[in-house]
Amino acid sequence: MPEFNAPLRDMRFVLHEVFDAPALWARLPALAETVDADTADAILEEAAKVTGQLLAPLNRSGDEEGARFDGGAVSTPAGFKEAYATYIDGGWVGLAGNPAYGGLGMPKMLAVQFEEMLYAAGSSFALYSALTSGACLAIDAHASEELKQTYLPRLYSGEWAGTMCLTEAHSGSDLGLLRTRAEPQADGSYAISGSKIFITGGEQDLTANIVHLVLARLPDAPPGSRGISLFLVPKFLVNADGSLGARNPVACGSIEHKMGIKASASCVMNFDGATGWLVGEPNKGLAAMFTMMNYERLSIGIQGIGCAEASYQSAVAYAHERLQSRAPGGAQQPEKSADPIIVHPDVRRMLLSMKALTEGGRAFATWVGQQLDLAKFTEDATERAQAAALVALLTPVAKAFFTDTGLESCVHGQQVFGGHGYIREWGQEQLVRDVRIAQIYEGTNGIQALDLLGRKVLAGDGASLRLFAAEIRAFVDSPAGSAQPHSAELLAALERLESVSAWLGEQAAANPAQVGAAAVDYLHLFGYVAYAFMWARMAAVAGERRASDERFYAAKLATARFYFAKLLPRIHSLEASIRAGSEPLYGLDAEQF
Amino acid sequence: MPEFNAPLRDMRFVLHEVFDAPALWARLPALAETVDADTADAILEEAAKVTGQLLAPLNRSGDEEGARFDGGAVSTPAGFKEAYATYIDGGWVGLAGNPAYGGLGMPKMLAVQFEEMLYAAGSSFALYSALTSGACLAIDAHASEELKQTYLPRLYSGEWAGTMCLTEAHSGSDLGLLRTRAEPQADGSYAISGSKIFITGGEQDLTANIVHLVLARLPDAPPGSRGISLFLVPKFLVNADGSLGARNPVACGSIEHKMGIKASASCVMNFDGATGWLVGEPNKGLAAMFTMMNYERLSIGIQGIGCAEASYQSAVAYAHERLQSRAPGGAQQPEKSADPIIVHPDVRRMLLSMKALTEGGRAFATWVGQQLDLAKFTEDATERAQAAALVALLTPVAKAFFTDTGLESCVHGQQVFGGHGYIREWGQEQLVRDVRIAQIYEGTNGIQALDLLGRKVLAGDGASLRLFAAEIRAFVDSPAGSAQPHSAELLAALERLESVSAWLGEQAAANPAQVGAAAVDYLHLFGYVAYAFMWARMAAVAGERRASDERFYAAKLATARFYFAKLLPRIHSLEASIRAGSEPLYGLDAEQF
Repeated sequence: MPEFNAPLRDMRFVLHEVFDAPALWARLPALAETVDADTADAILEEAAKVTGQLLAPLNRSGDEEGARFDGGAVSTPAGFKEAYATYIDGGWVGLAGNPAYGGLGMPKMLAVQFEEMLYAAGSSFALYSALTSGACLAIDAHASEELKQTYLPRLYSGEWAGTMCLTEAHSGSDLGLLRTRAEPQADGSYAISGSKIFITGGEQDLTANIVHLVLARLPDAPPGSRGISLFLVPKFLVNADGSLGARNPVACGSIEHKMGIKASASCVMNFDGATGWLVGEPNKGLAAMFTMMNYERLSIGIQGIGCAEASYQSAVAYAHERLQSRAPGGAQQPEKSADPIIVHPDVRRMLLSMKALTEGGRAFATWVGQQLDLAKFTEDATERAQAAALVALLTPVAKAFFTDTGLESCVHGQQVFGGHGYIREWGQEQLVRDVRIAQIYEGTNGIQALDLLGRKVLAGDGASLRLFAAEIRAFVDSPAGSAQPHSAELLAALERLESVSAWLGEQAAANPAQVGAAAVDYLHLFGYVAYAFMWARMAAVAGERRASDERFYAAKLATARFYFAKLLPRIHSLEASIRAGSEPLYGLDAEQF
Repeated sequence: MPEFNAPLRDMRFVLHEVFDAPALWARLPALAETVDADTADAILEEAAKVTGQLLAPLNRSGDEEGARFDGGAVSTPAGFKEAYATYIDGGWVGLAGNPAYGGLGMPKMLAVQFEEMLYAAGSSFALYSALTSGACLAIDAHASEELKQTYLPRLYSGEWAGTMCLTEAHSGSDLGLLRTRAEPQADGSYAISGSKIFITGGEQDLTANIVHLVLARLPDAPPGSRGISLFLVPKFLVNADGSLGARNPVACGSIEHKMGIKASASCVMNFDGATGWLVGEPNKGLAAMFTMMNYERLSIGIQGIGCAEASYQSAVAYAHERLQSRAPGGAQQPEKSADPIIVHPDVRRMLLSMKALTEGGRAFATWVGQQLDLAKFTEDATERAQAAALVALLTPVAKAFFTDTGLESCVHGQQVFGGHGYIREWGQEQLVRDVRIAQIYEGTNGIQALDLLGRKVLAGDGASLRLFAAEIRAFVDSPAGSAQPHSAELLAALERLESVSAWLGEQAAANPAQVGAAAVDYLHLFGYVAYAFMWARMAAVAGERRASDERFYAAKLATARFYFAKLLPRIHSLEASIRAGSEPLYGLDAEQF
């Protein structure tokens, strides 16, 4: 069974050295009292223990056993319940939560690194609390004071869990079609009726209560997505003294049989006049839910990085152990029957692709975390607005690019193992199955791409993209940026992105199909440029500090070289495909497929 | 549960119209008596029935149930045994077998299309006979007359099955390491001892006997791959009258728990002094086994196409039915709550990618089949040698490119389904799991790429590549080729391939790591150029015949446009990555990963 050891040195490199998080925290009053470099390191070290020793050992057995459904109840696999109890004792669910209601108030820059460890140790287990953290964010931002006081403390503590109830059988990407109804009651509550599918953790045996955030329609709601409201619907009603009261008529009808994340229960949830409370304004539910959705989108992106990191660690270990054939230039270990396969160029190509994509993603996630912290904690209105704009721009990229490259990485990791990669006991095939869902749920990656190109780039007339470009140019013009070796390639790639964006802006005005036709290629192009920015930043720091730890920093510089030489050129094909336009997609009538 | 309907119209298009197989058959004496257009069509229609009605319905249940191991015996899933009995009654196992021993003597061009249907209906079931057909080929080519008379008729009939016993626990890609021993016995037989792993169908309950082709070492064998011999080792010894005799001491020790192809038993096979007979010359076993391996490599490539075709059919049906959101230009079906998702450009991008890759692969497989038929049946020595050289060049491309693009296609098909793509009952996730093995077994795709670039292109000083290029140029210069619209793009792509090949030839002389560093990118570059050739040929025929069936031929022309506009540009990134050389792969020492 594969081990997982959190890559603490790499995480500290990104957090402290590349982004200098402690300096940022020191200048933001709300964080200055809460966290410093030592606190952050202590938290990450503790997180490494919890994920590596408590959770990772449950990942294979959890996959084999799966979640089980029996008469409305869901059982998680052996060991989950005990591990969950230990896990929540550490306060991890409320790590970045609001301290006014029991959260720990830690910065998102730190939380993203914890989340990566959590997913690397096991996607299924991670989901049970990832939904809770996101639900807290939406409740904290939009619910009444009474709801916050009733629910947030026990959600942050992990005693209760949260869910996100959006999808219905006929309404997935198109939420405007949803039919679940909410009838106002005399006491100010609502009676919720309808059926939701694919509800992660909709039912489970880990927590005493489950708090569903549910999208539904009020009786007088306008049709489509403007007529959706958000409701909080607990599994058990909560008495005035905080104790659990009557069972609410919301029940799990069945769970799905899935490709992966088998220990995570994906539930059909039936609401049969269940009591709920409005969160936020009537008919503004979609916007309120987006507070949670954006949280989850970044989180699910990080699932892609976590799975890729786990796959990478396992593949590197195997490539050191497995002896097959000789190095191209002759035997490297002539005393053995063959050389370890890490000598072979194609094995290195796969491992370096994984390494460059995973570490690029980790830096990018930490950058998004930094912008989230700025948007939340800075007192400078301009800085806050710019950070919020960058978060909006980068979130769909994080969700889709981390997970698309996450699948690529896990497929490489599996391939390094040869035939053993296909065998369950080695764990690599599970990572491929588990990471695959991350490209689908929380808005498919196609939906993320439409959001990026349509809403975040073109709809704002490119303002957010200009912010992104300005960040890159400011770096390249800085002493550190100009001293690293990849400025010319980075700027050339950025110019390709800007040129394509401008071209798409013109095209889309005349032909609305151009946006959808280009969107996925565009998101990938954006992602490769963003990772080039991250690798140039990492190379800048590594170049400066190389003498202090040659082995570590030289590896960063070499991985940056690999990225620019072997992966960044993918933008050429993406650009050519984008510029071929939408016409090639409409040469066939629907019935000619 | 998804249906599978063999794409007979598309298959006939490739077989009859693009490659004009009947004209070839008519001029090859051995085939002229055996097959004509009508016979071929009748066979394909019967194959469509068998695969669509008998086998496809077992694919999901076979995955859920899996092969089971109990006390040395293997049970296939419910229904497999009965279906196998019906299946072999049709003579399918010996379809292209030697008529002197009971085979039907059909051309490979036809057989590849049958194999595609077989894998599309279910990879697991297909493997039980795919190995038999390959074993027959090796026995027919290398075994003694006595062995051929004893074994071939009942292998061709499917009463007995064949296996391929190469891999040992410590010896996978590097067969030179294998340790299984063969001791000569007084009666001219050999006692085989050793343990093999990953043996597909090593044990099963479908056939009365199982004939293992086993690589092993004679006592005086030189070390490495020059000391390997090939042996035929039956599960039950065969008496002089053809009846089954004593059980040979070869037994299944366990079966693997795998990501997919769960109904196919992947066996640990223990040979404990089992009686076997030498096939071919002592110490020339690897070359003899390559007769079977090359057969299986093409066959496993076709698994990639078959899975992709099944995924495509299912995804198209879903894209017609599933209603979500509106077309970019406004509602297409305003009477419904939303438009079918096939109106969305990104859904079309995925479906067209699948269609272009699958049909390109089908044409390529048929082309390889044509060259195999020429190499086997032509009486012209030059034509035979050229065909054999093309087969050697194209086989690793077929194996690796069909399966790499097969995974891409199945992932697209799954993505079209959104969340439902991740749920087992819809079948798409099984195709992803089942097709994934095809990139690994029969020589990983990395090994195929080394074979292509190292042995087939560079070692022969580019002679085979020149043959390939000459075929393309001859087509472009022909009246049909010059009339189709993609000549310039095709020739430009070919020139990129030639230029990169020449550069690699120079580089490899000085730096042996260049071959391995470039190999996978090179194979993909080659594959995209080859598919461009196929699409130009298909476009030529479709352009000529368009008036006779506008709907069908216009779709071919539009898919060709899509291929050249959206997929062929991938060669630019591949070329850039290749030309970046091997240095970026060796910037890290092994311990820096």
